[in-house]
Amino acid sequence: MTVSWTIDESTITDLARGAAVLGTGGGGDPYIGALLATQALREHGPVTVVSPDEVPDDALALTVAMMGAPTVMVEKLPNLDEVIAPVTALAASLGRPVTHIACAEVGGVNSTIPVAAAAALGLPLLDADGMGRAFPELQMVLPTLYGITASPLAFADEKGNTGVLRTIDNTWTERIARVAAVEMGCSIMIAGFPMTGAQAREALVPHTLSASVRIGQGILAARRENEDPVTRVAELLGGRELFSGKVVDVERATTTGFARGRARIDGADGSLTLLFQNEHLLAELDGRVLVTTPDLIMVLEHESGEPITTEGLRYGQRVRVLAAPSDERWHSPEALAMVGPGYFGYDTASHRFDGREEGAR
Amino acid sequence: MTVSWTIDESTITDLARGAAVLGTGGGGDPYIGALLATQALREHGPVTVVSPDEVPDDALALTVAMMGAPTVMVEKLPNLDEVIAPVTALAASLGRPVTHIACAEVGGVNSTIPVAAAAALGLPLLDADGMGRAFPELQMVLPTLYGITASPLAFADEKGNTGVLRTIDNTWTERIARVAAVEMGCSIMIAGFPMTGAQAREALVPHTLSASVRIGQGILAARRENEDPVTRVAELLGGRELFSGKVVDVERATTTGFARGRARIDGADGSLTLLFQNEHLLAELDGRVLVTTPDLIMVLEHESGEPITTEGLRYGQRVRVLAAPSDERWHSPEALAMVGPGYFGYDTASHRFDGREEGAR
Repeated sequence: MTVSWTIDESTITDLARGAAVLGTGGGGDPYIGALLATQALREHGPVTVVSPDEVPDDALALTVAMMGAPTVMVEKLPNLDEVIAPVTALAASLGRPVTHIACAEVGGVNSTIPVAAAAALGLPLLDADGMGRAFPELQMVLPTLYGITASPLAFADEKGNTGVLRTIDNTWTERIARVAAVEMGCSIMIAGFPMTGAQAREALVPHTLSASVRIGQGILAARRENEDPVTRVAELLGGRELFSGKVVDVERATTTGFARGRARIDGADGSLTLLFQNEHLLAELDGRVLVTTPDLIMVLEHESGEPITTEGLRYGQRVRVLAAPSDERWHSPEALAMVGPGYFGYDTASHRFDGREEGAR
Repeated sequence: MTVSWTIDESTITDLARGAAVLGTGGGGDPYIGALLATQALREHGPVTVVSPDEVPDDALALTVAMMGAPTVMVEKLPNLDEVIAPVTALAASLGRPVTHIACAEVGGVNSTIPVAAAAALGLPLLDADGMGRAFPELQMVLPTLYGITASPLAFADEKGNTGVLRTIDNTWTERIARVAAVEMGCSIMIAGFPMTGAQAREALVPHTLSASVRIGQGILAARRENEDPVTRVAELLGGRELFSGKVVDVERATTTGFARGRARIDGADGSLTLLFQNEHLLAELDGRVLVTTPDLIMVLEHESGEPITTEGLRYGQRVRVLAAPSDERWHSPEALAMVGPGYFGYDTASHRFDGREEGAR
């Protein structure tokens, strides 16, 4: 692992594609994410990415992200002013200069918006994120489990409205920012979780940006080499293919700022149901739960290995569903109370991914 | 008019009662408001009230108010920490010390909460407010018409959550603060509309606190003197009695943070319908509109002249309904677009109060 590398226009598509895989259906559309980051890199030059090991203890890192329903963001592309506005507002409120930008989650948009912010602000980006995947709510990051507060947290919309919240816990940050996001058009930019370098090193999931680039590059390399991109992704993730089939039903509603729903995929091995809330949270084969959140459930296009977000799922798509283990820290009892299936209202215990191949049902 | 006077425990009940009259049914319950202000005055001593004429041009005045549904506040009494939290947050965000506290509106709670804030912060209070009455939305103040921005605006709840908004206009301040208020339990404290002394002098309605005290004292004096308190109030307001009767029907719902509804009062002269949204906005006699917002419509208890808030209206109450003219500036076309009956969804032109006695229908 090199300790520092750069993201430029040539890397951004790989990053966005790989991050969309790790985003488990959420984290936003990689095409939209790449557009914005590319524009920023063109205007401001490449972004230096540093490993959390290399960050000074007294650094001031912030996470930057889009909050809202990805379904809306497709129609309301953020601009660079909107992306840097919450960082500027938060730095003013903290009264200290920000030294590093970090990703709150991995995803097609939420791994590339921090690139755009870092480029526009001339700041280095951490090769790390708060989840090692994507989750639908703001407090659902490992830093919460380390007692790092989301607040002060700043938010901004494309019209020029901003706010800075100081809350008693990360769930209240989520609640207030979420209703603001819905009122402001279902898509806002946020900056928060101010962390020292020492905290970032302890609490973030390291090297997820470089992993995303490797996955994105791996998909393209496999296509070039006439190998199977989906198998390549499974290898890179230490995961395996759960199911292969055709999307026969998608139910989706954007409620309270989230894209919630379910998809049914029929294949030779039966019928797989995916339940999602921005991200895929539960995979069920003919009524039997296979894998649940916090482990990773990903949908890739059958041949090309292209990641498909939950908002991109369509009737008739031929897809393959992968599962892979999450960061081990997500399996602690405290973490499961925050991101396990029960939290999302699914009446099942957490089902961990295991690497063993299952027979047909 | 004395240029400066003090509010102490002996004045606060008069102030709250008189402000509840001018609050036209809104602005909160005077009993609750008096409780909180009395506690603050006991702990911190009396508050100096200064006429807007006496405020230095370079003063920094903020309005302090409760935002939310008064129906909820009855059950969730704010504490002093919650009242001063938004002022402290806003002063920190502005980077300048606040020199004066002002009232955004007149009302049983929203004239006494600024007293509590001024007492706890050791600051003088302006003898003025932003409306000369109460209105349900934050942007509905004369300062908006003078181009004074509500933002930066700070808000706080009783749990310790705070936020500071910077918005592109006062309607966006209202929208974002309102959804935050609803999420935070339908009642929060806000501080905003930072103004210089010169701006306060121009944009506020002067001497409404002293007028409230005079009305409160007038009601008690009339009772002592065996005169009619309602007639006394009408004289003090330059208004007149519209109707007298018994409340026979009240419909009320707390929706999106407001107490909306209608009341029917039957009397010898027919049947009067009052339409309200926190405040009384329209009075209709047997289907004929008598008076509408922005002029003042007030409901007083028949004998005692005690003001009755919209949330205090009950079946069987014997009441008298007064009307009085608002500040003349509320009748400009720009003002009517903001607070006229059309804005509130009532399909009628603005009906101004006039002093002539009407015959029976």
